[in-house]
This record gives sequence, C-alpha cells and structure tokens, in this order.
Amino acid sequence: MLAEQRTAKWLARLEVALDRALPSADQVPQRLHQAMRHAVLGGGKRLRAQLVYAAGWACGANRSELDAPAVAVELVHGYSLVHDDLPAMDDDKLRRGKPTVHIAFDEATAILAGDALQALAFAVLAKTDAPAKTRIELVATLAEAAGTRGMCGGQQLDMDATGKWGPRSIPPLKTHKGQRIDINPVLASEIALERLHAMKTGALIRASVRMGALVGEAGDELLDLLDDFAHDLGLAFQIRDDILDVETDSSELGKSAGKDAAQDKLTYPALIGMAESKRRLQELREGMHYALRGLGKRAVPLRALAEFAIARGH
Amino acid sequence: MLAEQRTAKWLARLEVALDRALPSADQVPQRLHQAMRHAVLGGGKRLRAQLVYAAGWACGANRSELDAPAVAVELVHGYSLVHDDLPAMDDDKLRRGKPTVHIAFDEATAILAGDALQALAFAVLAKTDAPAKTRIELVATLAEAAGTRGMCGGQQLDMDATGKWGPRSIPPLKTHKGQRIDINPVLASEIALERLHAMKTGALIRASVRMGALVGEAGDELLDLLDDFAHDLGLAFQIRDDILDVETDSSELGKSAGKDAAQDKLTYPALIGMAESKRRLQELREGMHYALRGLGKRAVPLRALAEFAIARGH
Repeated sequence: MLAEQRTAKWLARLEVALDRALPSADQVPQRLHQAMRHAVLGGGKRLRAQLVYAAGWACGANRSELDAPAVAVELVHGYSLVHDDLPAMDDDKLRRGKPTVHIAFDEATAILAGDALQALAFAVLAKTDAPAKTRIELVATLAEAAGTRGMCGGQQLDMDATGKWGPRSIPPLKTHKGQRIDINPVLASEIALERLHAMKTGALIRASVRMGALVGEAGDELLDLLDDFAHDLGLAFQIRDDILDVETDSSELGKSAGKDAAQDKLTYPALIGMAESKRRLQELREGMHYALRGLGKRAVPLRALAEFAIARGH
Repeated sequence: MLAEQRTAKWLARLEVALDRALPSADQVPQRLHQAMRHAVLGGGKRLRAQLVYAAGWACGANRSELDAPAVAVELVHGYSLVHDDLPAMDDDKLRRGKPTVHIAFDEATAILAGDALQALAFAVLAKTDAPAKTRIELVATLAEAAGTRGMCGGQQLDMDATGKWGPRSIPPLKTHKGQRIDINPVLASEIALERLHAMKTGALIRASVRMGALVGEAGDELLDLLDDFAHDLGLAFQIRDDILDVETDSSELGKSAGKDAAQDKLTYPALIGMAESKRRLQELREGMHYALRGLGKRAVPLRALAEFAIARGH
C-alpha cells in the first residue's frame, strides 16, 4: 500500500471512531453535544492521531487498538483549542475556517464542551480492548501531557509571557554554587521559548507517539528513540507554524494570520530571524531521520510526518 | 474509635494527600499552581472524599488505596467549582468564604487551573498502588461521572434552563407508540429538576461511593445497594442545599445566599413548597438507611454522612 493510501485509511478510521465516541447531537443536553461535535469533527490536520497510528505501526501494534488513543488525543487537542479560543484567552473567532465554539454557541457552552471533551478522552482510553496495564499507561501518559507539566502549563506560560518578552522575563541562570551565569539575552529568550513550546504543544505530540508505541508494546530503547523523534517533530511543527504566521494570509491559513505579531507573542522569526529559523528546521529534519534510522520500512509513515512538519503550507 | 475521630483522621489524610498531589506553588508555572492550590486546598466539606473513605471502609478496603480516588474526586469537584464560578457561567465572586479563582487571579488562569485539575485527577488515579484492573475501573467511573452524562451535562442543563423554567421547557412525554402523555406541569418540572441534579451533582457523589466500593472489591449486589444509597444521598444533599439558600444568610453560608431566586433558578422549595421539600428529605433519609440495613457496624460512617446530608446547617 502506498503511504498516502495508508494515511487516508487511518484518517477515515479516525473520523468514524470520533463520530462514535462523541455523544449524538440529538441526545440531551443537545446544545452541549452539538458544541462538542462542532469542536472536534470535520477538519484539522489530525497530526496527533496520525502520530498515534504511525508510531503504533512502527512498533507492530494492532491497528484496532490504536483507535482509542488516536481518538483520545484528538479530543484533548480539540478541547484545548476550544478553551484557548475563548475571549479570556486568545480571543479567536475563526478556527479551521469555521466560527469558534464560543462564537457558534456561547461562552458557557464552550467552557463546558471543553471540559466534557477532556473527560470523554479518559473515558475512551478506559474502555478499550487493550490489556488493563496498557490502558493505565495510556491514561497516565495522556494525563501527564495534558496537565501543568505539559499543555496547560505551556498555555499558562504563553499567557504570562505575551507582551512581556525580553531579558527581564527570564530568571537569571545560576551555577550550583549560586554564581550567576551571564547569558546572551536572545539565547535566554530562546531557551524560555523552547520550553514554552515543549510544554504547550510538544507534550501532547510526544504523548501521541508514546501512546502508539505503548500499544505496540515497544521496549524502553525504542520508546526513547521515538521520544527523541517526537521532541524534534514538536519543535519543528512550532517553528513552521511561526514561519507560516508571517508568510501566509488568513484565507490560506484558515485562521487569523499575523496574529502573533499583533498580540506581541514571541516567535522564532522575531527572535532569531527568518533565515536562521529555516536553518533550524533543516537541523530538526536531520535529527528526526537520525532517530528513525534503525526502523527501516516500518518508519515510512513517521518519516512522511516529519517531512510534513518541515514543509507544510498550512 | 469514635465515628468523629475516624472522619477527622480521613480528612487529615486527605489534606496531606491533596497537598502532595498538587504541584508546589513555587514550581513553574507558579501562577497556575497557585491558582490550583487556591481552588482545592483549605476548605470545603469534602463530602465526596468522605464518601470514598466511608464506602471503602464499608467494603473492607485498604485505607491507603482510598487516598487516590478521594483526592481525584476532590480535584474534579474543585475544578468544576472554578469553572462554574466564571463570569460566563454563574459569575460568583465568593466561594468557601474566599474570593473565587478568577477574582483572586484572572479568568484565563481560572480556565487553565480547572483544566489542569481535571487532568491531574486522572494522573493521580493512574498512578496508585491498586491493581491495574481496579485503576481502570476508577478512571472509567470518574470520567463517566464528570462527562456529558454526568456533571458537565447537568451544568449545561442548568445553564439552558435558568430563567426558562416552566411547562414549555419540558419536552412532551410520549408513549412508545408516539401518543402524547398529559402530565401535570409541576410534576414535569420536578422530573426535569431531578434529572438535572442527578447529573450535575448526583453523578459525582455516586462515583465517589462506587470508587470506594471498587477499591474494596465489592460484588455487584453490594455495588447496587450502595448506588441506591448514593442516589438518595445526592438528591437529599441538593434539596437541603435549596432549603439552605432560602433560609440562611451569606455570612453563614460562605457563599452568596438567595442567589437561586435572584438568578431565577428552579429549586425544590420554589417548585413543591418548603414543607413538602422537608418531607422529601425525611423520605430520602429512610431510603438511605434501608439501603444500608444489611451492613451493620461497617456502615456507621455512611449513616453519619446520610444524617449530615439531611440536617446540615451549611
């Protein structure tokens, strides 16, 4: 099977599984269920679900056991977008070319829909056919990635830092003897920016790869290699996102472009320049292929996702 | 040991376990962690945690294995209060005698703190010492209760119905042949009100009892009896809450009193009158003691909680 056909099959499986996992729109409370379905169905790159399937495939996982973690991670990603779009957060009116949930419904419903999507993600993981031990590892992996050391923590850092970037926002580095280390302010900001993204988007991307590998019963060595891959992919994805926000207009992007600069959010092009940002992308590309070097043909889908992260146009 | 001493020991264990489960306030991102701790620590009746311990005790559970579900259910309850208090929802400024999270911090932080508390609840359940099979049952129980068929669904019904109560808000009942059933409007409203509360607060109360019993490896018959008890307790708790909202002033209540009427929320005293509300409470009290009749001394803590639900003054 061609790689594109395989991906298309996975995405088709995913949409069916998502549709089944979500409560139907005519079931009470209808408004909540409609909002949840609006948030999750019909759109999005499904990068995280693809990573679950592709990592699982690389580890010889049973495809039917990958549906649950693929659904769960898309539910968590979907809920995070609903909450991030709220007026008190990023105040976005457009998402995937559609009105955001609080615009299409209302704020209270958007808050509740996000909350219910998160609960549903864990319900889905708890009810799969995988062995109980695997299911618990999946729950632990997703819960850690979604929490304060992952996605929520990164979003908080992002909110705290918006409009406040600069050397002052970075606590001084010290040696273990308490001596202050002088550090280039750009480098200090870059360290902070990388940590922010590693938490805000990187944690869920790494969890996706790990969940696929766990279902495939990967050993520790393989889990570590795949985690290296996932770390680089998350960062590459973010750098590409920053580049696209500068270079693309809103209609192509499906969301408001130029928003980072307007909101005074720190981005890679703003911090290290466009040329250096693109050079970093190539570095990450090499790192990803290096991590996958021992996997041969089984890593074809993961390599395709690496290329997508580096070169995607939206 | 006296019942009060036992409860005091449980509550002391819980506070230690909650403090350990929550990220420390000086860890990055500090603001988020401070908000999470503000939301959960230092206050509250801890009814749900007490139910976990008391139900676990009734089923002979190992006390140390009850800490995780007790912590998890209080984290979920805590997050729901943070989100319910938001301006877009109930718009409350006072909770447990303290400023609500969005007042003490800000709206974005309150949204994220709630989200992170929910994720943490599942992380805590996944990492306990209980067998994997039990842990998965705990995750499934809590996730179901927190979702659209439980807490979030009930909150949505509450938002949808506020200010709109009356015969029009109740869809007409029909027989399976499609014939419309004429129903007294007060009775119809009462059915809808009971469903709302069974979801909004009842589901998490039932999950608390069930989680304690699951750790105690209760059989299906005992699980069913305890579920009857928990159902009645949840409803009794809500009726008592409605009565207190009418009869008590804000300083005693620790939150804004008379708010139900001001927001045009339907309550039991408003619907069936104060005398009938109190009669219902006594009926539920008898039901709870009946459900526990076969458990002898092991049900002493559960009986004490039944009495508390019926007669509490705040």
